[in-house]
Amino acid sequence: MKGIIMIIDGMGDRPLKELGYKTPLEAANTPNMDKLAEIGINGIMDPIRPGIRAGSDTSHISILGYDPYEVYTGRGPFEAAGIGLEVIAGDIAFRCNFSTQDENGIITDRRAGRIREGTEKISESINNLKLEGFEDIEIIFKESTGHRAVLVLRGEGISDKVSDSDPKNEGKPPKEVISLDDSQEAQKTAQILNKFVETSYELLKDHPVNLKRIEKGENPANVILPRGVGAVPNLVPFSEKYGLKAACIAETGLIKGIGKIAGMNLIEVEGATGGTDTNLENITKSIKNTAEDDNCEFILINIDGADEAGHDGQMEEKVKFIEKVDTVISEIMQIDDVYFILTADHSTPISVMDHTGDPVPIIIKGPEVRVDDVNKFSERAAVSGGLCRIRGSDVMNILMDLMNKSEKFGA
Amino acid sequence: MKGIIMIIDGMGDRPLKELGYKTPLEAANTPNMDKLAEIGINGIMDPIRPGIRAGSDTSHISILGYDPYEVYTGRGPFEAAGIGLEVIAGDIAFRCNFSTQDENGIITDRRAGRIREGTEKISESINNLKLEGFEDIEIIFKESTGHRAVLVLRGEGISDKVSDSDPKNEGKPPKEVISLDDSQEAQKTAQILNKFVETSYELLKDHPVNLKRIEKGENPANVILPRGVGAVPNLVPFSEKYGLKAACIAETGLIKGIGKIAGMNLIEVEGATGGTDTNLENITKSIKNTAEDDNCEFILINIDGADEAGHDGQMEEKVKFIEKVDTVISEIMQIDDVYFILTADHSTPISVMDHTGDPVPIIIKGPEVRVDDVNKFSERAAVSGGLCRIRGSDVMNILMDLMNKSEKFGA
Repeated sequence: MKGIIMIIDGMGDRPLKELGYKTPLEAANTPNMDKLAEIGINGIMDPIRPGIRAGSDTSHISILGYDPYEVYTGRGPFEAAGIGLEVIAGDIAFRCNFSTQDENGIITDRRAGRIREGTEKISESINNLKLEGFEDIEIIFKESTGHRAVLVLRGEGISDKVSDSDPKNEGKPPKEVISLDDSQEAQKTAQILNKFVETSYELLKDHPVNLKRIEKGENPANVILPRGVGAVPNLVPFSEKYGLKAACIAETGLIKGIGKIAGMNLIEVEGATGGTDTNLENITKSIKNTAEDDNCEFILINIDGADEAGHDGQMEEKVKFIEKVDTVISEIMQIDDVYFILTADHSTPISVMDHTGDPVPIIIKGPEVRVDDVNKFSERAAVSGGLCRIRGSDVMNILMDLMNKSEKFGA
Repeated sequence: MKGIIMIIDGMGDRPLKELGYKTPLEAANTPNMDKLAEIGINGIMDPIRPGIRAGSDTSHISILGYDPYEVYTGRGPFEAAGIGLEVIAGDIAFRCNFSTQDENGIITDRRAGRIREGTEKISESINNLKLEGFEDIEIIFKESTGHRAVLVLRGEGISDKVSDSDPKNEGKPPKEVISLDDSQEAQKTAQILNKFVETSYELLKDHPVNLKRIEKGENPANVILPRGVGAVPNLVPFSEKYGLKAACIAETGLIKGIGKIAGMNLIEVEGATGGTDTNLENITKSIKNTAEDDNCEFILINIDGADEAGHDGQMEEKVKFIEKVDTVISEIMQIDDVYFILTADHSTPISVMDHTGDPVPIIIKGPEVRVDDVNKFSERAAVSGGLCRIRGSDVMNILMDLMNKSEKFGA
């Protein structure tokens, strides 16, 4: 038996007046998810704890059986791993923006004209940089999509207890990075970052890519602003923790990074955009191929579009995307010899346009589960299911038990 | 008001095709349990945590309100206490087999021809043994039922971080006991055990009981193989923890041992075999007598047959035994002034033939409980009950509250 956990990012929601007080999932026409609910055991799940607003990262970490309060210090490490950097435990990692700074040191565009091309060339000028006075610290820098990038600091005596440099609004200079505790490590790291931001401007202001952009009337990507600091955690690899060879099919760098740091095999899918326009056909093919691979015993799947629609407050878009995902479910349901778990990582209500702590529905389908009377997949139908209310941290324990891979505790 | 917790060992199960996708409990005709469900409050319970495969020992420990992750290191201490040895905190205790070893040092029968008689005499030769070089360590040894026995080491500088000597299969020599950490204590204990196994053979190979067995063509019980090591925990006695004078009516040494180590009064029942052939009439009489005893305010009851049937994969046997137990319930229900809790310690599904992490149903009957609409006792009917999904560690708190014996936390 294999295990598949499929997470529809941000699918959970709240009743909306515009939908006759139904949630988008309740309003959507989802015959396949409903069928899955009918033949499985249902419940609601708090990714972390009731009422706690989980991030996608902390929720996935929790569902995989790691304690986010222990291992999660920030988003940087997962973003870095997600774009393919080989981070190691102890690295201090950041998300960055390519931004535009004027000659007075003021940020005039946090996203550098939403730059899409040339960031690879720009990154070459930053990667492997040695900062004066901090030559012992390795600087790894890589562009991500659009105006995004990641920065990794590697070396002794550094810390994740530092603030962001992103001023959040245009018209201000980069925010001075400060140490968030009294340790020498944090103070040193803050100095490194301030020097890094300053140096990035010196190195990039006349970079050929930027000179061309200025010529074309585009904002240059002439300064790098790190934020979202985190220390790369020392995770017991998933395969070691559970004895399951695992693959991760995800769209966003954040979730790919979680898979990567947990030691999973990342499966790239062409056309997986992370939006509602994503290529669900290709994702489905990937899932089916991976499930057939003898070398894979567990698949973590994340599909991101519903979360995007939630963040954008796009009600109809969210309903429609859930209906699109429903067609995928019909195919995954047919994979043999699998425990299939369908759930979300958190709610992203249309009305809030951000994550909330409302629990999400969960179905477990597979041999010998205690099938219940629920025959609809929704936040409220799931409540009367056989799982009652569980937590993200219970999911892997329940799956391992069903897969008969658990050790007995005691006699 | 008194409290009774009755645990039907291993009663929980999974839906079985052969039973029309009912569980044995669902398939069994249980009018009395169903009546109890109707007049009580119902729910499902995870003995430890969702998905965790509890042993009978760790589950009972948890239900009694002790943390198994803190106090449980292995089965030995409970087996030892269960057959009447007065163990004390810090003792290192083992389960043992009387086995047969040939002159080449090979174990030819792990159960010494399933010896039934003469083990008391054999044990006399081992009990109080002083091992050369370890004269400071007291050795307490006592036969249990059949080929089983227990060993207790008492003294300074010993540890439970040692391996088993049982090779698990015939045709191999006793497994060399090794220390499982680098401590001097563990190394010393491993040496003691290896010497103990070796010495047991020297002392027993020509023991009169064994000479007679050999004469009769039976395998001699000429070597002792310890396993299941554990350190006797320092439990706050149940009566002190809850202010309730408690009795334990159990069939197996393991559960008796838990009662004993928690300081409960052990009630012996004639004909209680721990199997499906047990004398339920005598058990019922014992329960009623104990409940009438003014000196007893709490009774822990364990009936083991359903677990045995589960381990043996005997579906019909399990259904029938549950039906037999149902007749007991009718009598216990009639005891006045009692909060009566009926549950299981874990699931032992027919299909798995071992414990699983599936939750078990629980009923609490007594004055003023919030009676719900559940009118059937089963794994799935219980889900819609008023208790929802609780944990083993919640049970005593709920009972103490109902019994009005709880202290308020706060003002």
